[in-house]
Amino acid sequence: MNAIILSIGDELLDGLIADTNAKFLSERLQGLGIRVVGHRAAGDDVAPIASALKDIARVADVCLATGGLGPTLDDRTREGFACAFGLSLARNAAAERIVRAFFRKRPMAVSNLRQADLPRGADPLANPVGTAPGFALKAGRCRFFAMPGVPSEMTRMFEHEVAPRLLRLPGREAIAVRQLHLLPGTGESVVGETIADYMRRGRNPVVGTLVSGGIITVKVVARSKTQRAAALLASDDVADLNQIFRGRIFGADGSTLENEILSILRRRRQTLALAESCTGGLLSKRFTDVPGASDVFVESCVTYANASKARRLGVSKATLERLGAVSEACAREMAEGIRKTARTNWGVGITGVAGPRGGTREKPVGCVHLAVAGPGGVTHRELRLKGDRDTIRIRAAALAGAELWRRLTKD
Amino acid sequence: MNAIILSIGDELLDGLIADTNAKFLSERLQGLGIRVVGHRAAGDDVAPIASALKDIARVADVCLATGGLGPTLDDRTREGFACAFGLSLARNAAAERIVRAFFRKRPMAVSNLRQADLPRGADPLANPVGTAPGFALKAGRCRFFAMPGVPSEMTRMFEHEVAPRLLRLPGREAIAVRQLHLLPGTGESVVGETIADYMRRGRNPVVGTLVSGGIITVKVVARSKTQRAAALLASDDVADLNQIFRGRIFGADGSTLENEILSILRRRRQTLALAESCTGGLLSKRFTDVPGASDVFVESCVTYANASKARRLGVSKATLERLGAVSEACAREMAEGIRKTARTNWGVGITGVAGPRGGTREKPVGCVHLAVAGPGGVTHRELRLKGDRDTIRIRAAALAGAELWRRLTKD
Repeated sequence: MNAIILSIGDELLDGLIADTNAKFLSERLQGLGIRVVGHRAAGDDVAPIASALKDIARVADVCLATGGLGPTLDDRTREGFACAFGLSLARNAAAERIVRAFFRKRPMAVSNLRQADLPRGADPLANPVGTAPGFALKAGRCRFFAMPGVPSEMTRMFEHEVAPRLLRLPGREAIAVRQLHLLPGTGESVVGETIADYMRRGRNPVVGTLVSGGIITVKVVARSKTQRAAALLASDDVADLNQIFRGRIFGADGSTLENEILSILRRRRQTLALAESCTGGLLSKRFTDVPGASDVFVESCVTYANASKARRLGVSKATLERLGAVSEACAREMAEGIRKTARTNWGVGITGVAGPRGGTREKPVGCVHLAVAGPGGVTHRELRLKGDRDTIRIRAAALAGAELWRRLTKD
Repeated sequence: MNAIILSIGDELLDGLIADTNAKFLSERLQGLGIRVVGHRAAGDDVAPIASALKDIARVADVCLATGGLGPTLDDRTREGFACAFGLSLARNAAAERIVRAFFRKRPMAVSNLRQADLPRGADPLANPVGTAPGFALKAGRCRFFAMPGVPSEMTRMFEHEVAPRLLRLPGREAIAVRQLHLLPGTGESVVGETIADYMRRGRNPVVGTLVSGGIITVKVVARSKTQRAAALLASDDVADLNQIFRGRIFGADGSTLENEILSILRRRRQTLALAESCTGGLLSKRFTDVPGASDVFVESCVTYANASKARRLGVSKATLERLGAVSEACAREMAEGIRKTARTNWGVGITGVAGPRGGTREKPVGCVHLAVAGPGGVTHRELRLKGDRDTIRIRAAALAGAELWRRLTKD
């Protein structure tokens, strides 16, 4: 069963917001065994909406449309449906009850009743958290579900009104999705080459890679007759991939590198502190993105100035003057210094040149020194990273996490 | 001149990531006087890519395609173009030079040369920050530009290779885009109601609001016959909006709150240090996102543990024991403590409950205390923020910046 997501609103085409509704709905549909084959975005005008709807009716079994259902004149989704499928708009009694119910305890501008004018044959969908009812409409072979664009209203309507209807549809696939996350350090191309046979088009499971926050993830999507068969199919690939990437996989599915590290430390009742220079707080932010980090993560010092490296972490004047802040010695002293002063089991030091300025011939932009201090001593890595300031900072943070993870799984 | 943005990648249809590339490109195209009339996303398969490309070639003057240019077998954009327009793929010498240049100093998996196989007639676009060259290709009336999907590579290629080519195209609209950034604290809906007349559909200039990183921006887009006329139209609205939001605007166009703060401090030869708890390094990251922050930003301490608040910042045991870490007194002592120990002119303290757990009746999730210590003393704000952990952390960081900005523009 194929689905297309249609997002309606000038704010998308004007680049005012990113389309997070399409992401949410795509993930949910995949989980329901409905294959998303495309996204589209159209502006708040009848013609583009109608033309997109007609295209979609030809190719999709299901279409989730969001946006353009509000009371104002620039909300044209209802007219778009009417135009696309030659239906008249008529006041829908059930939809009017939904609108009036929302206003039971507040004054209602009469314009709000526009929202109850639905294409003939449409079934209204309740919206308890907003003024606009959605609607379901079958046109040709395609089942359309029109929902509001406001994410909080859309998600609630999807979960309470749309998902239950989709679950009753026959012909959904049994699907199993698994993810393996790889330690950074290997390029996506090398990873892809290693598992080229698994990534062959048309193969089931479908295996693909994606990169986010400096981490490469291998995703396995298996389809079969039954949920159980799909799960088994996926497990076979996951077993193979675990072999192929042995020692380079830090986690699976919903986990993150920082989450895995915190879990290992939590099990060992060990603690962590960070000393960041070029990453400027990004690594701390990644660890504290994890709820409940506080029982392991004690503190970090973002020592941007040399004086701060010396005062907070005890980096020696000699190192700073002779070798400079971007040096192996400085990274090592930062890691040891934060471990000692924070009184933690583990300390990480990162110093480098994030750019765009500040690079020299021997220390170019992208030159980063990492050090990890732990019970087993201090280890160091020198990196030469490519990319802009953001990319260099993200990769440096991911590689610092990887170095710590390696130490934790060895020491 | 009409443009459509085509985003290619299963990760979009699987809901693994939101399409931020389409947002970025839509905004940039608008600024170049090219009207974005649609977005589309297609999976990593030749047929859907080709069919989208053929549709687009019929209706658009310009198409920006992103994704699917990598070295792995699931990168099929090149084949998609070849199939759509009946072109053969051939090794492009210039593209091969681009690929080899990237690997000059590192081992290259041979699969990377796939990336130099372009549809006949395509002109390669350089990619200094990644392995995949892009390409430009004219098919029918439509000029296609294929770029990588990795945002850092795409943005760089767009700015250096694509935008200059678009600027040479005739038939672009004369357009002027201005942005005003508001201090956080007012909701987007309230801002929208305040300027409802300006936001009327069909009006020129088009006025809209967007929220990013906890900051509300009012955007003015004026179109006219000449660049000068468009600029004047936009300026009139900007003048009105400056009146309407007097005292609540911190910057315009490309600036950020952190950038504005660093500029003010730089002019005054003053310095800044931060003490973060619940934001966990996010505020430091936002300041160090600004290149050259190091001449103003000295350091920050992410004091997650109480012991660390006491040891690094001198927060009193009494405060921590009697009032707790989430309290006005603790925020004030954090701000004073970091200012004193970092020996800076300004210090900021943030402590609160980011959630999802850890809330109590008197200190619920979203309860955050901010303090700013400066030459004029210490000021404090208590916040009650709504939303998930990310949202609360982002809003707290934005509001901390706003409080510092207010102090800097008063003291």
